[in-house]
Amino acid sequence: MTLNATHDARLRSWVDAANLPGTDFPIQNLPHGVFRRAGSAEAFRGGVAIGDQILDMRQALAAEVFPAGLRAAAEAAAQPTLNALMALGPAAWSALRAGLSAVLREGAPEAGRLAGCLVPQAQAEHAVPAAIGDYTDFFTSRAHMLNMGRMFQPTQPALPQFSWLPIGYHGRSSSIEVSGAGLPRPWGQYRRPGQAEPVFAPTCKLDYELELGAYVGPGNERGQPVPLAEAESHLFGVCLLNDWSARDVQGWESLPLGPFLAKNFLTTVSPWIVTLEALAPFRCPLAREAGDPPGGPNLAEGGGASRSGLDLTLEVWLATAASQGQAFRISHSSSRHAHWGLAQMLAHHTENGCNLRPGDLLGTGTQSGPRQGEQGCLMELGHNGQRPVALGNGETRTTLEDGDTVILRAWGVREGFARIGFGDCRGTVLPARER
Amino acid sequence: MTLNATHDARLRSWVDAANLPGTDFPIQNLPHGVFRRAGSAEAFRGGVAIGDQILDMRQALAAEVFPAGLRAAAEAAAQPTLNALMALGPAAWSALRAGLSAVLREGAPEAGRLAGCLVPQAQAEHAVPAAIGDYTDFFTSRAHMLNMGRMFQPTQPALPQFSWLPIGYHGRSSSIEVSGAGLPRPWGQYRRPGQAEPVFAPTCKLDYELELGAYVGPGNERGQPVPLAEAESHLFGVCLLNDWSARDVQGWESLPLGPFLAKNFLTTVSPWIVTLEALAPFRCPLAREAGDPPGGPNLAEGGGASRSGLDLTLEVWLATAASQGQAFRISHSSSRHAHWGLAQMLAHHTENGCNLRPGDLLGTGTQSGPRQGEQGCLMELGHNGQRPVALGNGETRTTLEDGDTVILRAWGVREGFARIGFGDCRGTVLPARER
Repeated sequence: MTLNATHDARLRSWVDAANLPGTDFPIQNLPHGVFRRAGSAEAFRGGVAIGDQILDMRQALAAEVFPAGLRAAAEAAAQPTLNALMALGPAAWSALRAGLSAVLREGAPEAGRLAGCLVPQAQAEHAVPAAIGDYTDFFTSRAHMLNMGRMFQPTQPALPQFSWLPIGYHGRSSSIEVSGAGLPRPWGQYRRPGQAEPVFAPTCKLDYELELGAYVGPGNERGQPVPLAEAESHLFGVCLLNDWSARDVQGWESLPLGPFLAKNFLTTVSPWIVTLEALAPFRCPLAREAGDPPGGPNLAEGGGASRSGLDLTLEVWLATAASQGQAFRISHSSSRHAHWGLAQMLAHHTENGCNLRPGDLLGTGTQSGPRQGEQGCLMELGHNGQRPVALGNGETRTTLEDGDTVILRAWGVREGFARIGFGDCRGTVLPARER
Repeated sequence: MTLNATHDARLRSWVDAANLPGTDFPIQNLPHGVFRRAGSAEAFRGGVAIGDQILDMRQALAAEVFPAGLRAAAEAAAQPTLNALMALGPAAWSALRAGLSAVLREGAPEAGRLAGCLVPQAQAEHAVPAAIGDYTDFFTSRAHMLNMGRMFQPTQPALPQFSWLPIGYHGRSSSIEVSGAGLPRPWGQYRRPGQAEPVFAPTCKLDYELELGAYVGPGNERGQPVPLAEAESHLFGVCLLNDWSARDVQGWESLPLGPFLAKNFLTTVSPWIVTLEALAPFRCPLAREAGDPPGGPNLAEGGGASRSGLDLTLEVWLATAASQGQAFRISHSSSRHAHWGLAQMLAHHTENGCNLRPGDLLGTGTQSGPRQGEQGCLMELGHNGQRPVALGNGETRTTLEDGDTVILRAWGVREGFARIGFGDCRGTVLPARER
């Protein structure tokens, strides 16, 4: 993914808020999402975030600002799900980005016609931006592996296959919802400490996991693997993803077939998908340590992909029922610590002939860094309850409590480039339902 | 699910082949599927198997044989996917079954109009009968657990949670295909015996798994569990399912997050879905042994469900490249050995608030019985290669070879009731693709 004129840091938009220094959505970003006016019965449709506004793609089409060559992509970007846009592939995505950049630019002759096509983000509500056929979650952070391993398998905290392949497993697509979805504390079966028999009760160990997600583009036919060198052409863009987890349920149910009810009650994604092209300035080599094996023969960096990593700042904020709306930052890290990149995840996923479809979602797994404060879930951050996490108001946490709101944030900064942000991905824990 | 007039063994059809003793599809069965004429460009549409024919539901609708009260269900049953039918729920399914039974009965006045609505099964090809949103596979056979456990974890072959809950994990929906789909031997990363480093090569340990699948009916909203007592009203019907597995890949990749590339290259389902109502004569108590715990507090038999088991004969047949079309029976068992039933699987799946959607697929996991010859996969049957399985032509197998065709079969028989069969679920192993 190469840099081009759309990445030029000097570009300014006629949407004033897009030019403010701290915005997540400058004209160099142009992420896609699906929205309608909050509380309305309007149909959801595609939109593009710009500053504090959303460009309504359906209205922009009606305003006839796009040249003929962009109409198919613009129409796909105006749909209530973005699967058709994802299916078009990188040339179409890139052309649409260039077109959006042109019409949203300061001085663009289209500004007059487009000014009426904006909806303030503060007045919008969102839907999951794709019909997600299959959702796969991976395990790409070495620190996450070691932190979890030291707690649960201290004699051998490292997984033997971790450096050879991006470990992955299938998640649940039906329960993926967009930022803001409430989470009634799930019930589940688990063992209380020291007891041999399980109970069925609301989870006592609710946790978040800080992840990035990637939406699949054109995809592949069954039996036709995507080589690593082509993998990025199948990656549309990136979102924030919270892989909520019930640790007590997970500990009881997961061996040998992996997490199931411990995670499938809800997965939250951010409304906006930042395209891989917008993230081009933040590419970096994958995290490697001396002595690391090269990775599987079809997965090694250099063997078709380079700078597969993403250097994005990641943060977790927590607001509580008692904090009166104030949120405290409890974790900050970077996705540059990942041992595997999105391209490796996608190539590995298809190496056996497994077919991916447009709109499929790939999660990176918890993005923990190696230092204290960089852990991407509360279980790691609080050392499995041994070291409660202090909030800024005297409260502490070892697991999530009812009324807690978890907010994930991410952005890229690099000298000479515009700051590119993701917006918030949030969710609030509600009391367990009565049975 | 109660017995009614549609189960009467004395019923005969005006479709002659439905009255032959060995047929899978007597008038007491009436399974739903999706088909078109083989090799044609026709649209797939819903059909109902009767004898050696398929009643084309689209044509039957045009022939106006259904009373007004059945038209909505009949139209749903005529669609290219049966999700809308599944969403209607048991009252509609049962009414449609009664209506189909009436018009296909010997002497039915509709016979003349319907005779032109039949397509011979031998001239048809099928599609997966639903758009499967999520596919979940379970682990319900104690013998399968113990057989696998003795091979890989001999000091503790039993899983502690097995008797407390139906262990489950998420599978891949994109690679579910209908009987007949070819299977190029998948490539994968695995370790050869005695070697520390993995290779990337075609799997050397390809296996089948003999399972039943169940399609979800109306389903539930996120956060609204389905109690065990209501679970069967969310189960539309049952199919055969082959959970193809690459054991070498599975052994390398699976801990701690479960099987991934070892299984997601293909899952094969049978074309026909036998409704739960058609299977009413074959209900049986779940397999329990002295000392078994009662199961989770919300999952115990009697606590809302009884006779949750299914007593269906299950068989695996194998034909080889050298056997000139001849297939050999290598395994025969019964689904009555399952420790958990479909109702428990579904209730457990939703107990944390996870939402199921119409057309979701639940697999039972490998259906092994306790005796030699009853194992539901080649790895168990051949004791992990220690005891090669003899075919009838001098060949033996410890894993599947290129050119092997695996055929799964199932049927119910009970004194005083018609034999109800599932048709074949088959697939052929093709050579690995070149890289």
